[in-house]
Amino acid sequence: MFRYSALLPFLIPTLASAAGGARESWVVATDLWGNTLYQALELERGGNRLTGTLDDDRLDGEIVDHKFRFVVTDSEQATYAFTGDESGETLRGTADFPDTNHPEARVTHAFEARRVPLRPEGPPRRHELQPTDWSNEFSSRRKPVLTIWPGDSVHTTTIDSGGVDEKGKTRALFGNPQTGPFYVATAGVGDTLVIRIDRLRLNRDYADSLDDLVSRAIGPGLASKAADLGRPVRWKLDRVRGMASLENPPDRLAKFEVPVRPMLGGLAVAPGFGSPPISTGDTGRFGGNMDWNEIVEGVTVYLPVNQPGALLYLGDAHALQGDGETSQWALETSMDVEFSVDVLQGRSISGPRVESAGQIMALGQAGSLDDALRAATAGLTQWLEEDYGLNLSESAQVLGSSVHYVVVNLAGRSVGVAAKLDKRLLGGLRPIRK
Amino acid sequence: MFRYSALLPFLIPTLASAAGGARESWVVATDLWGNTLYQALELERGGNRLTGTLDDDRLDGEIVDHKFRFVVTDSEQATYAFTGDESGETLRGTADFPDTNHPEARVTHAFEARRVPLRPEGPPRRHELQPTDWSNEFSSRRKPVLTIWPGDSVHTTTIDSGGVDEKGKTRALFGNPQTGPFYVATAGVGDTLVIRIDRLRLNRDYADSLDDLVSRAIGPGLASKAADLGRPVRWKLDRVRGMASLENPPDRLAKFEVPVRPMLGGLAVAPGFGSPPISTGDTGRFGGNMDWNEIVEGVTVYLPVNQPGALLYLGDAHALQGDGETSQWALETSMDVEFSVDVLQGRSISGPRVESAGQIMALGQAGSLDDALRAATAGLTQWLEEDYGLNLSESAQVLGSSVHYVVVNLAGRSVGVAAKLDKRLLGGLRPIRK
Amino acid sequence: MFRYSALLPFLIPTLASAAGGARESWVVATDLWGNTLYQALELERGGNRLTGTLDDDRLDGEIVDHKFRFVVTDSEQATYAFTGDESGETLRGTADFPDTNHPEARVTHAFEARRVPLRPEGPPRRHELQPTDWSNEFSSRRKPVLTIWPGDSVHTTTIDSGGVDEKGKTRALFGNPQTGPFYVATAGVGDTLVIRIDRLRLNRDYADSLDDLVSRAIGPGLASKAADLGRPVRWKLDRVRGMASLENPPDRLAKFEVPVRPMLGGLAVAPGFGSPPISTGDTGRFGGNMDWNEIVEGVTVYLPVNQPGALLYLGDAHALQGDGETSQWALETSMDVEFSVDVLQGRSISGPRVESAGQIMALGQAGSLDDALRAATAGLTQWLEEDYGLNLSESAQVLGSSVHYVVVNLAGRSVGVAAKLDKRLLGGLRPIRK
Amino acid sequence: MFRYSALLPFLIPTLASAAGGARESWVVATDLWGNTLYQALELERGGNRLTGTLDDDRLDGEIVDHKFRFVVTDSEQATYAFTGDESGETLRGTADFPDTNHPEARVTHAFEARRVPLRPEGPPRRHELQPTDWSNEFSSRRKPVLTIWPGDSVHTTTIDSGGVDEKGKTRALFGNPQTGPFYVATAGVGDTLVIRIDRLRLNRDYADSLDDLVSRAIGPGLASKAADLGRPVRWKLDRVRGMASLENPPDRLAKFEVPVRPMLGGLAVAPGFGSPPISTGDTGRFGGNMDWNEIVEGVTVYLPVNQPGALLYLGDAHALQGDGETSQWALETSMDVEFSVDVLQGRSISGPRVESAGQIMALGQAGSLDDALRAATAGLTQWLEEDYGLNLSESAQVLGSSVHYVVVNLAGRSVGVAAKLDKRLLGGLRPIRK
Repeated sequence: MFRYSALLPFLIPTLASAAGGARESWVVATDLWGNTLYQALELERGGNRLTGTLDDDRLDGEIVDHKFRFVVTDSEQATYAFTGDESGETLRGTADFPDTNHPEARVTHAFEARRVPLRPEGPPRRHELQPTDWSNEFSSRRKPVLTIWPGDSVHTTTIDSGGVDEKGKTRALFGNPQTGPFYVATAGVGDTLVIRIDRLRLNRDYADSLDDLVSRAIGPGLASKAADLGRPVRWKLDRVRGMASLENPPDRLAKFEVPVRPMLGGLAVAPGFGSPPISTGDTGRFGGNMDWNEIVEGVTVYLPVNQPGALLYLGDAHALQGDGETSQWALETSMDVEFSVDVLQGRSISGPRVESAGQIMALGQAGSLDDALRAATAGLTQWLEEDYGLNLSESAQVLGSSVHYVVVNLAGRSVGVAAKLDKRLLGGLRPIRK
Repeated sequence: MFRYSALLPFLIPTLASAAGGARESWVVATDLWGNTLYQALELERGGNRLTGTLDDDRLDGEIVDHKFRFVVTDSEQATYAFTGDESGETLRGTADFPDTNHPEARVTHAFEARRVPLRPEGPPRRHELQPTDWSNEFSSRRKPVLTIWPGDSVHTTTIDSGGVDEKGKTRALFGNPQTGPFYVATAGVGDTLVIRIDRLRLNRDYADSLDDLVSRAIGPGLASKAADLGRPVRWKLDRVRGMASLENPPDRLAKFEVPVRPMLGGLAVAPGFGSPPISTGDTGRFGGNMDWNEIVEGVTVYLPVNQPGALLYLGDAHALQGDGETSQWALETSMDVEFSVDVLQGRSISGPRVESAGQIMALGQAGSLDDALRAATAGLTQWLEEDYGLNLSESAQVLGSSVHYVVVNLAGRSVGVAAKLDKRLLGGLRPIRK
Repeated sequence: MFRYSALLPFLIPTLASAAGGARESWVVATDLWGNTLYQALELERGGNRLTGTLDDDRLDGEIVDHKFRFVVTDSEQATYAFTGDESGETLRGTADFPDTNHPEARVTHAFEARRVPLRPEGPPRRHELQPTDWSNEFSSRRKPVLTIWPGDSVHTTTIDSGGVDEKGKTRALFGNPQTGPFYVATAGVGDTLVIRIDRLRLNRDYADSLDDLVSRAIGPGLASKAADLGRPVRWKLDRVRGMASLENPPDRLAKFEVPVRPMLGGLAVAPGFGSPPISTGDTGRFGGNMDWNEIVEGVTVYLPVNQPGALLYLGDAHALQGDGETSQWALETSMDVEFSVDVLQGRSISGPRVESAGQIMALGQAGSLDDALRAATAGLTQWLEEDYGLNLSESAQVLGSSVHYVVVNLAGRSVGVAAKLDKRLLGGLRPIRK
Repeated sequence: MFRYSALLPFLIPTLASAAGGARESWVVATDLWGNTLYQALELERGGNRLTGTLDDDRLDGEIVDHKFRFVVTDSEQATYAFTGDESGETLRGTADFPDTNHPEARVTHAFEARRVPLRPEGPPRRHELQPTDWSNEFSSRRKPVLTIWPGDSVHTTTIDSGGVDEKGKTRALFGNPQTGPFYVATAGVGDTLVIRIDRLRLNRDYADSLDDLVSRAIGPGLASKAADLGRPVRWKLDRVRGMASLENPPDRLAKFEVPVRPMLGGLAVAPGFGSPPISTGDTGRFGGNMDWNEIVEGVTVYLPVNQPGALLYLGDAHALQGDGETSQWALETSMDVEFSVDVLQGRSISGPRVESAGQIMALGQAGSLDDALRAATAGLTQWLEEDYGLNLSESAQVLGSSVHYVVVNLAGRSVGVAAKLDKRLLGGLRPIRK
């Protein structure tokens, strides 16, 4: 069964097709034995001639009376032949692929393609999005709520991890329901999506948490005492003063009050081909439920793109969170959010990054802190190499004197460690590109 | 062979024995099949009668014509009988202990005890110590360089991890040679030693380091590139401006300059009974080669006491170090140090702690970051319980909103993780004792 | 959007509805904001009266003129009211649930239910299944290929991890495509599914592997050398002699020949409510891509049931595999399989188990070997407690003298460790139930 | 202070010095700022001329009227000049070394050397050693109990980990007191010591254990229940039937009986230069408290030599132990032991190895199971490379199909994992040397 048509009805072009010679953008969905491969098709028509690219590979073909055939040649000279019919904003047909296991043999798959709208003329736009449903999965299969372009910004809201909105109403299933996905036109596999958090503000007066300690924080000495933990705790949020305090504090915490620091616990792009949808409680190279208390207003987040359009999700905001989210629930609340996007074409990063006014930070995520720290180090040295021209010997000298390592997340299946550097130290090193 | 006499000749009392009824302090060294058990003996004489304590257990006995016998009874009613002769500043004889494996049987061991000098009258003193040899072991067996009392301070120096002093001269074997040990009178097993770092200043103009990445920071992606690392790198230390820069920088690091932040990599008390000397490259509950970049001028360090007199060692100072000491050698240099000591009687802590002007910090050390983080959490919640009266549920709420977790050390056999809290958050919680 | 109808068209009852008073089985699919909750409905009709259970909770209601309403009351006295219409083999309507976040409020969800066929009369049956498509996900949403009952057995085949069948033909996408799922009637959430591997035989003459070492097996010393690994290696399988050897061996391996030991790398039930589909490369409490070389002909595997019907998947067979699947691909091949199923009602296990002629084995899976070993120990002590009546002190004595710990899997996101005991040691302990 | 004379009085030569031209063996102890460097000196006299080697470096010099001077030149052309007097079986004087920190400068150290006895003529001998004291440290400083030669065997006994001998008498301090060390003449730094366990038999009728679970085996689920564990448990050992059973079993373990499998928990050589003595509860590349249940009668153990004479220790025998020694104490008992030794000159191994009738096994020890497995893999591939000529690609194919990974030890500061291969698989690969 070919399920593509149910998934991408949203990609309605907003402008009529351009005249001959104009560039068209399509998303091609090829059904590989029940698994959908999405690819970005850039098509140019010159009379009957078709040229362009599929992802990064060149194609050549022709179209006559709405019947087309084009052949894609990849970097290893393998060929992929697409044949079919054009009908309105849809291409549909069969794709003839090499057999993965026997390169000399061929396999035929069904495919379907839909037009991506053209970028409206004029300056970048600010979109307003009032969400009406939320996703409990980071999925490449979900219909985007909006198509946006590099430079655009979006003003929207997120609901809390229990599915409750700013008015206290349950709007979605618990488990970090996300706003999105946003289709970022021009973002393709192997690019980097840039998300600037322009605004992140509390929009209600309470947050829900637990008096818990995650098992990764509990050694043998605390285990017996910890058996009783896990009760709900409600915090009051004073939006004027920017302070959080317990609604019903035990005596010794009666005066305990902490400045809020609103953050997004969930920020993700869709996982790549071959991956099923991912739980909004999980993390990976694509970001996810990172629960990183540095994703606050003013920072820029970088994520590696795995699907055409990136498909950006956000949610699970916290009014405040200690490192590691040791209480399993941080101060969970809804949020007023504004972000803008950009795409770094042809730049691939090994994992999530954050850049603040003062620091560059690379996140490593793995099944143990030891492995996560290795991944964070790899991420930071990649950054120093690509943007500052440092080889590994030079990076080692910078890190040995100046790196900061912080534990990011202890509450999920993977844990997170961030490697950070102060930007003022890098001032003398002229970034080699940006 | 009973080796005690070779080890404690240093404990020369500075005042004549007090008159009848005065309290005397001794260190008893009992030879258990070649392993020395050190215990603190507090003795009061009333005529022929002897009373007092051995560690925390009561004793009763008598002394006639310099021949004595006293019996110690522990909390489980087991008895330990010491018999022998007093000769000048020495007690020597045999100790009759229960057989560990057969409580009804008895075993006889040799022992010897030496007087601990009395505290000089007057206010706390400031000692000046110019070291002449250094220790490559954290050992309970090494002769103290000085006996000091709570409240006293010491001005001294440390040499670098390669054994080189402030004049560039090799004075000891490489491997973090330490100044010390200092015998802190009144400190006993189960107490906490408090060390305030009053001064920690550079005293030469260079530091030695490597362009290395420790293996714990290297994942599969970096491994091939990292094979070439490990070359010596010399840093210039500008003591006027407080800045470090490379002596022979590669081009891209020509302008790389970092503020120094002098720290003590090594700070330790002697390990307890049953432990051999520990390498000055190793760590444990007793502190050791913690390589913690928060042990800087102005902080207070807490270590659990494992031997009479604590036996404090210090060394391996760094002009600057990133988290984890990823370059295996930080900016290794000699240092001008002043510290003062105090003893928290009867307070036992689970591991090293640091208190700065702004934070309280508990260190966890273990074979993996995952286990080290558990230990750090246990240390911090113990602190919150004992000093701030918080039960685990209350601590969990504080940590969930506010804890910081930082990677301390990646370069040793054990790794370190610190759990930190900002003291201003704890302002509303009146410390219940201090 | 309510997507249920697309997902369960398969559950066609094979017998007409029973007369009044007869028990009917249904699967109810309730749409919770786009997430499907599957529950087992056991319904009894007495005139207009409806009684029975939904999962394990009692229900009461009535049906008049094909319009029904029934109310389920759970163990905490919360109520769930289902109202709707019966039409042929379908129930459809709305379910009124308590609001998770505000128990006093209610939320209305759409639901739909389909009949589960009745068990055919007579002895257990042996089914023959020739698969025609394969799944690259362990999913609760996929249409079952067959409904079977406790006691039944199935004879079928699996294709290799690259999607190639016994004739060398590519039939599915690479990445461990699975045969299934099989709907095991009567299996419900909280039960244990028992799968006996009655037959597991090679059905072709080659297997594909790599000359690789997974990164978890590579320390700093091997990293540089390992950079060149990862080339395809083909093995010949001599089915008569039961031996594997390299098709094009390097000189020193010319005589290297190993007895085959066919095993199933993949064996899983569907994940529970709230989980998206899981990649067939991943593992969990539900089993999955365990790559455990003890899942061989003759053993019995136990998996915890998370969905009505369990939904059993199998695939990714190996002719042979060392512990840990260190070469990333073991000797990957297709297989001829026969298995039979049973259900342990009301028994919940913490993770996968295997029982062979000689041993009982509990599997722990986690992000590090350290955590996996803890989970394996918990699994084995649970087994000893529930089936042999041992408390933890008794289990500790058995383990201390006799436990075996083996590394199962190093090639996935989680790693596996098995805790094993020889059954002959347990002979003197009469199992307290089975 | 030069402490050498106290440490090596034992090395009394058993034969008079050979005539001119004969080879003499000495152990040189050089005092490097309080740290003793032991080196093997092989000396040949030709008239006044001295030639030979110090460790593996050539020396040249002369001796006149018992006053000698010789200069050692290492592979990097650095020189070490020894000057002094010969007196009986002692050489004593000063050694002029390059300054580690300033190669152009020199440092003078005191040294002293003692003759190693010559090998008695005739076939290898069988020694009988009745120990009279035991060591609680693996130390290079302890006086050997016996000097033996390659080919020799020793019949002796070990006492249990609590210091109790075969008659139930406490003979040493608890904590794995060891028999030894044995000085194995000709073994030098960089060689491999071969220890064959010729006999390992119970010599009393009971063993002591606990009903404990080590913390590394306890996850959150077991922690509360495990708080009560840790009580002493005595086992009866039936030496005729070779069976162990509980002395006072709880009801359900009344018939629990297990075959004994006597093993040595402790087997070690002295650690190398720069290491203090190591606790007999600790482990390392040198072996130590490995608690490996494969060190049984009949196997051959390989350890890397770190000091002249290797200095072999053994102790902490167990009548039986499950993998990991999860009960913290295994079935601790005394033992009757016979072993023989050999030396592989110039062969250095990365860590402990065991060879049994059926398997080769390499041990990895580290702070986490993940790191220990990496070390075990490195050890096994080193073995396959050096003895079977396999490059890493070939080893990867052997391991991928056939490796076994077993958890060895969970009870110490480091944990152990063994990588094993069945020798019959290696039959076709002619060992390239042995």
